[in-house]
Amino acid sequence: MKAGAVEIGEAKNSTPTYGVNKGISILDFVLRLLAFAGALGSAIAMGTTNETLPFFSQLIRFRAEYDDLPSFTFFVAANAVVSGYLILSLSLSIFHIVRSRAQKSRILLVFFDTAMLALLTGSASAAAAIVYLAHKGNAKANWFAICQQFNSFCQRISGSLIGSFVGMALLILIIMLCGVALSRR
Amino acid sequence: MKAGAVEIGEAKNSTPTYGVNKGISILDFVLRLLAFAGALGSAIAMGTTNETLPFFSQLIRFRAEYDDLPSFTFFVAANAVVSGYLILSLSLSIFHIVRSRAQKSRILLVFFDTAMLALLTGSASAAAAIVYLAHKGNAKANWFAICQQFNSFCQRISGSLIGSFVGMALLILIIMLCGVALSRR
Repeated sequence: MKAGAVEIGEAKNSTPTYGVNKGISILDFVLRLLAFAGALGSAIAMGTTNETLPFFSQLIRFRAEYDDLPSFTFFVAANAVVSGYLILSLSLSIFHIVRSRAQKSRILLVFFDTAMLALLTGSASAAAAIVYLAHKGNAKANWFAICQQFNSFCQRISGSLIGSFVGMALLILIIMLCGVALSRR
Repeated sequence: MKAGAVEIGEAKNSTPTYGVNKGISILDFVLRLLAFAGALGSAIAMGTTNETLPFFSQLIRFRAEYDDLPSFTFFVAANAVVSGYLILSLSLSIFHIVRSRAQKSRILLVFFDTAMLALLTGSASAAAAIVYLAHKGNAKANWFAICQQFNSFCQRISGSLIGSFVGMALLILIIMLCGVALSRR
């Protein structure tokens, strides 16, 4: 659409549309900041978790660290990537506050947001599946619950999932807001 | 925007926009069908998997089924839900082919598509984490690989993940296409 068309056809309702789009962009910025905090918090909480049991035999020290399990390593990496992306995307978000009619950059954001949502959800779910196994074990597969020994380790890794799942919910909201902003111009 | 404004401002470029939007809607329809096939195939492949070992003791028969592990139950349920949603969303997709200017229904679809993407990714990743554990085991946590005994069971559950991950990639594409369609009218 050209500027002329806007002036002829949309002179009446262009100002409220601008206002709504600016509001959406500001909300988008805030949500991105919150999601960033969640993802980074999760990565740090999981990455710094370790527990050494107070007893040890001559050969083995009982020590649990996050990178004993590949799913947790993936969790830390994915959360770091997503929080890095979110902090970079803030610049585009600010651009959208200033120029609320931008279209192409919004489509780009929708695409990357969706990919990052998939990455974050995937890593959080894989970690959650392992955390569940660590808590409950599985009698059929003969996998024993390790949380009886590594109690504080288990509490830390369970807690560190929260930030990731909050970030996930926020990313879904962000994508929907982007859709709303794209439909108005 | 009102019809009058369209006629005044967009008389020249409205036909190609309609055409592109109709093309996007048809592509969306096809991708939804493919994603539906992937998700349903995964649910069926995982849900019908079981293996009984040819030897048994007096008390125990060695039998593996998908619902021995909660992650696989979740996987079947989530894939069934997503494929049900995708088949229902086809009606809206047809509506978009006929009326390629629809906006609100597209936003609705973006929202639900994103939620379904999160559900599908979550279930597929949780199942993949357990499948990996079944193949490799984990020495630190004392979890043994069960795939040495249940060989064909492991092959089936590994294969059934494929449809789910394909559906995931298609859903990301569908959401992006929805964003492109929303930005043009």
